Amino acid sequence: MEMIDEMEIVKIISFQQEITNDNVIREYAMTLIVNDVEIATLMCSPDSLQYLAIGFLLSENIIDYKEDYREIVVDEKNGIVNVKLAQELKYKRKNKIIYTDGRDLSIDKDFLNNFRQIKLRSDIKLNYEYLFNISKELDDKSVIFKKTGGTHSACLCDEKGMILFREDVSRHNAIDKILGEAFIKEISLDNKFVFVSGRLTSEMLLKIVRVGGVIIISRSAPTDLAVKIARNLNITLVGFVRGNRMNIYSGELRIVCKKNI
Amino acid sequence: MEMIDEMEIVKIISFQQEITNDNVIREYAMTLIVNDVEIATLMCSPDSLQYLAIGFLLSENIIDYKEDYREIVVDEKNGIVNVKLAQELKYKRKNKIIYTDGRDLSIDKDFLNNFRQIKLRSDIKLNYEYLFNISKELDDKSVIFKKTGGTHSACLCDEKGMILFREDVSRHNAIDKILGEAFIKEISLDNKFVFVSGRLTSEMLLKIVRVGGVIIISRSAPTDLAVKIARNLNITLVGFVRGNRMNIYSGELRIVCKKNI
Repeated sequence: MEMIDEMEIVKIISFQQEITNDNVIREYAMTLIVNDVEIATLMCSPDSLQYLAIGFLLSENIIDYKEDYREIVVDEKNGIVNVKLAQELKYKRKNKIIYTDGRDLSIDKDFLNNFRQIKLRSDIKLNYEYLFNISKELDDKSVIFKKTGGTHSACLCDEKGMILFREDVSRHNAIDKILGEAFIKEISLDNKFVFVSGRLTSEMLLKIVRVGGVIIISRSAPTDLAVKIARNLNITLVGFVRGNRMNIYSGELRIVCKKNI
Repeated sequence: MEMIDEMEIVKIISFQQEITNDNVIREYAMTLIVNDVEIATLMCSPDSLQYLAIGFLLSENIIDYKEDYREIVVDEKNGIVNVKLAQELKYKRKNKIIYTDGRDLSIDKDFLNNFRQIKLRSDIKLNYEYLFNISKELDDKSVIFKKTGGTHSACLCDEKGMILFREDVSRHNAIDKILGEAFIKEISLDNKFVFVSGRLTSEMLLKIVRVGGVIIISRSAPTDLAVKIARNLNITLVGFVRGNRMNIYSGELRIVCKKNI
């Protein structure tokens, strides 16, 4: 199965924009059923699903020896891997869970459907140069990363500049810290945007959208699923903002080249 | 609380080695108690713990509005955040869980203690140049990453070369694919090593150790907790293997400069 999706995006280099096809990593949902119990849905790249399933069972302490499982059947089309153990499944968590890079997020598969009818709005417009500057500022402020190479950063900004900034060893936590701080300080996400250093998976996007974020920007890559959700919801999704370049994956009307105005 | 730990490591530049102090990112366990129920232990950077706790509750759909919680008490020394909700906690998972970057791994806090008495052994010795070459090979083989910027890679190697290689949108899955493939193909981890592109947290290390891995190498940073566990167990842990440089954090006797032999 294809690991890569080709998508039409808007590529910005300096102040030039070009509509072009680009490669985006696929994010695929693999549901793991063990002894007829659905134990997890892993967000993954769609290859070696049998290895992933068995590796997951090893890491989760569900199997130890080769004799511990009898059968493994991969249904690639429907994203299902069925494993039969030699013994009873002893596992506390039996509810449906979506994993990603990836903290376990307790959303079920219907979560997305609840969003389908919403088309999120925002009046904010950001220009290229401003985003290049924020990317540089995020970089400059990431002092723990510079010293250790071990963190991700996230910030909340409005049209005038950075309002909140946090680093964490986990890219999920970096975002949660920003969202939690905004919540406690009663800073609304209206007409603001979230800028992160790390890759954007569907889960990262959804947790920001859930609290009202409409513009989500990253120095790194998004997954195809994050892009598809963003397009569905009219979220602005921008990736690879580095130097004088960026890729606009969705909601390009909120990103303007000031020079043309 | 300090976000960074200073540790004595062996720094290799070309064929020179130097014992030096270096900054390593701290990995801190924050246990979140909601209405007297321990719902999660987050592996995180130890700052803004109240924001992280509230951001997590938002992301997990446990709170929606400011009125949904009454009190939040941070006990930084013991790594505990206590939240009182305005209403009953409706949350399925109430067991102790350790998160990291990070997939939910269902190990409890005693997991580590079970390892304490083991001092893992391996006869393999690797020389600098070989590791620099494997780092380059991992890079060259990561074709999905080159096209999308959206994956992590993992491989299993012995003294002669790379045996298994996988890419995934999740660094956890990349390792699980390698471990699952080795398990299914009955490839023992004796006298082999795991080389990954991504950062090494305690969880990544433990899942490799659990199936017998003794030498773990990364192109990126480890956390202090991963280093401490590695030192405890006599695991060889090497990070930042790039170009002709690397940092040996633990088990340096297994890494040799061939030129001296």
